[in-house]
Amino acid sequence: MALEIITQGLAKVTDVSEQEFSTLDAFRNSVTQTITPDETATKGATARNGSLTKPPGALGRLEDLAIWYAGWRGVARPELMSPQVIIFAGNHGVTAQGVSAFPAEVTVQMVANFRAGGAAINQLARLAGAQLDVVELDLDHPTADFTQSAAMDDAELLAALNAGWAAVNPKCDCLILGEMGIGNTTSAAAIGAAIFGGAPSDWVGRGTGVDDEGLKRKAGALSAGLALHKGVLHDPLAVLGALGGREIAAITGAIAHARAAHIPVILDGFIASSAASVLWALNPQATDICVAGHLSAEGGHDALLNGMGLKPLLSLGLRLGEGSGAAVAFHILKSALACHGGMATFEEAAVSGKS
Amino acid sequence: MALEIITQGLAKVTDVSEQEFSTLDAFRNSVTQTITPDETATKGATARNGSLTKPPGALGRLEDLAIWYAGWRGVARPELMSPQVIIFAGNHGVTAQGVSAFPAEVTVQMVANFRAGGAAINQLARLAGAQLDVVELDLDHPTADFTQSAAMDDAELLAALNAGWAAVNPKCDCLILGEMGIGNTTSAAAIGAAIFGGAPSDWVGRGTGVDDEGLKRKAGALSAGLALHKGVLHDPLAVLGALGGREIAAITGAIAHARAAHIPVILDGFIASSAASVLWALNPQATDICVAGHLSAEGGHDALLNGMGLKPLLSLGLRLGEGSGAAVAFHILKSALACHGGMATFEEAAVSGKS
Repeated sequence: MALEIITQGLAKVTDVSEQEFSTLDAFRNSVTQTITPDETATKGATARNGSLTKPPGALGRLEDLAIWYAGWRGVARPELMSPQVIIFAGNHGVTAQGVSAFPAEVTVQMVANFRAGGAAINQLARLAGAQLDVVELDLDHPTADFTQSAAMDDAELLAALNAGWAAVNPKCDCLILGEMGIGNTTSAAAIGAAIFGGAPSDWVGRGTGVDDEGLKRKAGALSAGLALHKGVLHDPLAVLGALGGREIAAITGAIAHARAAHIPVILDGFIASSAASVLWALNPQATDICVAGHLSAEGGHDALLNGMGLKPLLSLGLRLGEGSGAAVAFHILKSALACHGGMATFEEAAVSGKS
Repeated sequence: MALEIITQGLAKVTDVSEQEFSTLDAFRNSVTQTITPDETATKGATARNGSLTKPPGALGRLEDLAIWYAGWRGVARPELMSPQVIIFAGNHGVTAQGVSAFPAEVTVQMVANFRAGGAAINQLARLAGAQLDVVELDLDHPTADFTQSAAMDDAELLAALNAGWAAVNPKCDCLILGEMGIGNTTSAAAIGAAIFGGAPSDWVGRGTGVDDEGLKRKAGALSAGLALHKGVLHDPLAVLGALGGREIAAITGAIAHARAAHIPVILDGFIASSAASVLWALNPQATDICVAGHLSAEGGHDALLNGMGLKPLLSLGLRLGEGSGAAVAFHILKSALACHGGMATFEEAAVSGKS
């Protein structure tokens, strides 16, 4: 567990790429560590932002994004050159409860589609110039139906967290995390309800398009799962094990790695945000490395983001998953950094300041 | 004025690149013509969208954008390869009323900054892979102070409309229109108030950052201008001449050209939207060629967009102008078309449909 600190440019980067946790408590300890943006880089980026040829604040949230990114990278004038998209795929036993509009075999079919380049995220990753990795998580062995038992036992949960951690390319400079898993909006809703409270009906949405009856079945599954596991829901990692899915836990692990390695994360929609909320519940600072890419059309997403104090960059009614919303939002971050890094200062351009 | 119709791919493109209007009425007649998206292309794009490997509607507004673009281009599966950004710059006599936080010489200084590559739009145009053109409009001769007389006479207005029309590259396939002009939020606010009604105080904002006193002077200038010109404000082109600026009129002319040539337009913020509102007032269908790139932090922008029935793609608190918000939003349109054009169909990918 000893972490080697290396210096790369101006950034202090923790070399955590070979990390593998042997217990859930070891993972928990990693998440509860204090990790913060670099103050010098934040100050340098803020000063540069103030000197650029535009009225103060005129680039709005782009300015905040550039400074946030600079702080986490530890570089006052950073570039963003090597984004990585990872899609984690998992299957869910809770589909036995009739919670999805699509059959469970679509998970593996869509993984084949990712590999063949035919999905939305393939097009969006190409447009973003991003490395795209697809990680199948034991698709032949769905998690247990969480209305009957814990979705994952501790060993399965740990394996999924480690798989997520291991999938992150430590040389990437922005991480976009997506998922595929028929049934996983039900898991994500259950996680949201367990962490933030509220009625099951507040948390369930139509996912890939269930009808009214399916929506009732989703709420019923949530009620049953929350009741069955109520004894352990005070512990965020137990919530993840009891109600989550392998792809959700893998995203949790990947964000934890990104944080340790100072790699800013763009969160996708409802499922990715539920994975982040587990980290937030362990340590509210643990999601400071994340920006919310978009507000999903899935009903509970707003509550998840509000719970974590995150404000989405986009709100375009997307509800696809696969990291698609985050991959679109990537261009906003890239735009912010292009302006911050490339613009002339008032002095360089000989432009007059305010009257 | 005879328009030659040529066929380019599946698209009917009107060859209007050499158009020059000899009277304001000729321009008006062009705007009031009925021009609509191609129905066959719209249907083809809609059918393709429905066959792609995603739940129906799961890409939200990206799906609408792709179909809208396809219809206007007259191609069922279009690509977007050659965007153009044009920045029009003009100076405003109304700056004599103390309505701006920056001195008027900043207009010409920022034009030099555009030419040297140091402004925000230079970075954003490069990121978008867009042609960037800067058009200076008689910067040595500011428009008249609209609190004293019409900002432009008919000849000046016609020249600005024609300059905007002429600046559009008829071979571009997406047009992003920006501006630079110290004082032009005051002109845009006056146009908004003249076209949509409401109190001057509802329409003025802080622009590049005026203080409370400056804000009062802006509202005062609006009141004076609206009172002085009230006899002609029933005519949208007279509104543009009386209260507008050369860069605003040029944007009006450029959008009109884009519409005639079936080139989709991404509107930038408050000033570009005020230019569009003149077309909308002449013919509410004339802004169907436009999508609103973003909601500006400038107070009156929301009312302008609502007035035209346009819903912004982004809301990030930008208020810079230069086409910057539209250039960021460009990536959303590009993402929409990447998905629409590149994704596999359910049949191609052998993915099961809904249960």
